[in-house]
Amino acid sequence: MLFSLAMIVPAIVAAVYKDGAGKAFMAAFALCVSAGFLLWFPQRHQKTELKAKEGFLIVVLFWTVLGSVGALPFILTENPNMSVTDSFFESFSGLTTTGATVIVGIENLPKGILFYRQMLQWLGGMGIIVLAVAVLPILGVGGMQLYRAEIPGPVKDKKMTPRIAETAKVLWYIYLFLTISCTVAFWLAGMSMFDAICHAFSTIAIGGFSTYDASLGHFDSSLINTICAVFLIISGINFSLHFAAVNGRNITFKYYFLDPECRAFFFIQISLTLICVAILLAQQVYSSPTVALDQAFIQSVSISTTAGFTTTSFSEWPLFLPVLLVFSSFIGGCAGSTGGGLKVIRVFLLSLQGMRELKRLVHPRAVYQIKLANKALPDRVLEAVWGFFSAYTLVFVICMLGLIASGMDELSAFSAVVACLNNLGPGLGQVAVHYSDISDASKWVLLIAMLFGRLEVFTLLVLFTPVFWKS
Amino acid sequence: MLFSLAMIVPAIVAAVYKDGAGKAFMAAFALCVSAGFLLWFPQRHQKTELKAKEGFLIVVLFWTVLGSVGALPFILTENPNMSVTDSFFESFSGLTTTGATVIVGIENLPKGILFYRQMLQWLGGMGIIVLAVAVLPILGVGGMQLYRAEIPGPVKDKKMTPRIAETAKVLWYIYLFLTISCTVAFWLAGMSMFDAICHAFSTIAIGGFSTYDASLGHFDSSLINTICAVFLIISGINFSLHFAAVNGRNITFKYYFLDPECRAFFFIQISLTLICVAILLAQQVYSSPTVALDQAFIQSVSISTTAGFTTTSFSEWPLFLPVLLVFSSFIGGCAGSTGGGLKVIRVFLLSLQGMRELKRLVHPRAVYQIKLANKALPDRVLEAVWGFFSAYTLVFVICMLGLIASGMDELSAFSAVVACLNNLGPGLGQVAVHYSDISDASKWVLLIAMLFGRLEVFTLLVLFTPVFWKS
Ligand SMILES: [K+]
Ligand SMILES: [K+]
Repeated sequence: MLFSLAMIVPAIVAAVYKDGAGKAFMAAFALCVSAGFLLWFPQRHQKTELKAKEGFLIVVLFWTVLGSVGALPFILTENPNMSVTDSFFESFSGLTTTGATVIVGIENLPKGILFYRQMLQWLGGMGIIVLAVAVLPILGVGGMQLYRAEIPGPVKDKKMTPRIAETAKVLWYIYLFLTISCTVAFWLAGMSMFDAICHAFSTIAIGGFSTYDASLGHFDSSLINTICAVFLIISGINFSLHFAAVNGRNITFKYYFLDPECRAFFFIQISLTLICVAILLAQQVYSSPTVALDQAFIQSVSISTTAGFTTTSFSEWPLFLPVLLVFSSFIGGCAGSTGGGLKVIRVFLLSLQGMRELKRLVHPRAVYQIKLANKALPDRVLEAVWGFFSAYTLVFVICMLGLIASGMDELSAFSAVVACLNNLGPGLGQVAVHYSDISDASKWVLLIAMLFGRLEVFTLLVLFTPVFWKS
Repeated sequence: MLFSLAMIVPAIVAAVYKDGAGKAFMAAFALCVSAGFLLWFPQRHQKTELKAKEGFLIVVLFWTVLGSVGALPFILTENPNMSVTDSFFESFSGLTTTGATVIVGIENLPKGILFYRQMLQWLGGMGIIVLAVAVLPILGVGGMQLYRAEIPGPVKDKKMTPRIAETAKVLWYIYLFLTISCTVAFWLAGMSMFDAICHAFSTIAIGGFSTYDASLGHFDSSLINTICAVFLIISGINFSLHFAAVNGRNITFKYYFLDPECRAFFFIQISLTLICVAILLAQQVYSSPTVALDQAFIQSVSISTTAGFTTTSFSEWPLFLPVLLVFSSFIGGCAGSTGGGLKVIRVFLLSLQGMRELKRLVHPRAVYQIKLANKALPDRVLEAVWGFFSAYTLVFVICMLGLIASGMDELSAFSAVVACLNNLGPGLGQVAVHYSDISDASKWVLLIAMLFGRLEVFTLLVLFTPVFWKS
């Protein structure tokens, strides 16, 4: 297992670097192969089954090593000339699909670097799918053991290593298929092939990187906006459902409508869009209802699924809407999707529990059970979700204090942590468009926030507990 | 019960209004007596035992009616000439011991109004003690049923109405004793008798109103600062512990050190003070360590217990510290004290649960119990605490969105909600000193936030559920 993980690094990077021309990529590639070999060599005889502890360690190592290696091309390249901190920030922002950038003047970058940034997001998205569908449920992070038994399909019975490998293969086919469909759709809608591929990468990964400073606003096309929003919604659904839908003899859509999380997700997207349309028309931001609907749809979906694509006019919206949408990014995508945030299912369970408490206050002696799709949920899952929520809050507060200590003003610090911890990307205030004006210390804090968000907090937090390191 | 509650209104107000001179108070008194009579008259034959539902209704009605009645003098008086919104805001801010003010130039108010503002806080504090020690545990709000069986003393066995009355009496004696001690201490430290009484009122109630715009900074005395901080800590302790300490034959202090919440509370206060001292000295804000310690002590205690007194120099501190302290106000005082926030015990339980989750991840099959003072906690209490936490978060987000919709900028909105929901008082940004520059709509949102905070969210929230109104 360690073997394959360690070898994925150079393998993936090699695949990437053929696309980028120049010395930087070749040098980075050489470094990676050596590093990969050094990592692999001492472990080559180890083939035992994994324990929970090792699982956490591998997942965290995998992401940090990949992120660090991913920074090499940025460090080595001469255009753009980036500092080490900036390179790490851009690389982790890509891999974690956060999509916060420190680069201004994206249009002027060489095509190789542009493509590389998008590809980082796409690869990150791949990693997340496997992490969220196959690895975290087994490790039981933040209530995701819920999915261990529930989802029809791959996550069952078998031992850990082969199970992950099998599941990963099918998930990646789905991921690839979605990316190709999205590319074709963008292309037909008028993008160049290069832009189409690049934006499909960051759409399916819910990453939000673009090849233009103006993001999606560059194209100014309602068709492209709509395609992007639709594919974001598809990518924001639990990939286990996609898996279930294509796994039988026929492709079937019933799983989407049977799944309470997916229904809640659709409901949230529709409500947000309608709220935005209503307020935009009421405040006469747009005169035409069609334009309002188009803009509301793409912005609601883009921010609430934590993609972070923006259109030109978003910054001119009345303040209430950006703040509402930024808060909605705490909900994020479904579990097992490429979206960030707390995940729809967790927020859903938290509200069910909140409602149960209210009912209990009125009828203290009645017994209320929390059910999901007609099955009573074990307390264990709920407790894990609560633990997740408080850990998320704790990390949020600590990161925000760290940012302020490193010199940011409160508003920027607040929105930067929201944007990075939820893997959203753009914030408000000083970090509304890019992150190049903040101090190096702030960037490192945010990099850590991204990693916490992407690894569902607990996976990383558990490494800091004494009980983890006791043999 | 309803009878006594309804009659408390005019009784209390009568006691108050003898102190304030002028037509405003007399008119208000007349209005109160009539209103009280009208409320009481239809209920005069009802003497049955209370149910949970009625309990919630009475508590909420009690606070809203008292707050509205309390606004009358502000509306009727000519100096200051306040709008209806401002009057309600000031009255609720006083009664909920929030201490946010819309008045600028407090020094110029007539003594009667000054005294009345402080007295509102003091009465509010009394109400909170009874609410938190005697009423909420019985209603089981937010895990406070924990105290139903645990605390030695009054909250046990007996029926609701006599139990509340008896407990209230003893608690009020303690409250009165503390107020008198505090007054004497302030007076000996150099305050005028009037200022001493006024500040003792708002100290013991952890309210934070002052008779000067500059708050405690007006006196510029480290002795007064220290006295205030010490009494804030005493008032921030669960009054059940004070009750237990004086209830036996001898006064005994062991309960304080046996109680895990109280220990955590001391620990938090000491840590915050030390952090502040360290950073203040490191950043050379004060040259003398004694001054740094004095300022750090009063500000840490004042903000983290949610009193909200400020000294002149607080606004000049490096930004990190104010934000840290404002966040610490989420922890607030102990349950059953006059402090606001989530309460120490809840935060303590949440962290225990968070740690349990982390341990469970490493050893999925081990059984970890959450214990408090060597007793395993029932899941029911933990669930209630979690529900409380999420309801608090929900109310926070909704209030903040409401404020932004009513035209505030994000930072002020954020800190205003923190300050009001935690019953802290002063915020950051636009609302750092007073709340007079914000729109009427914002004031109403904040008034509701104060009430949510003071009534421990659930008490008020439960009224908005359908299940409450189903017979
Ligand atoms: K993103
Ligand atoms: K206060």
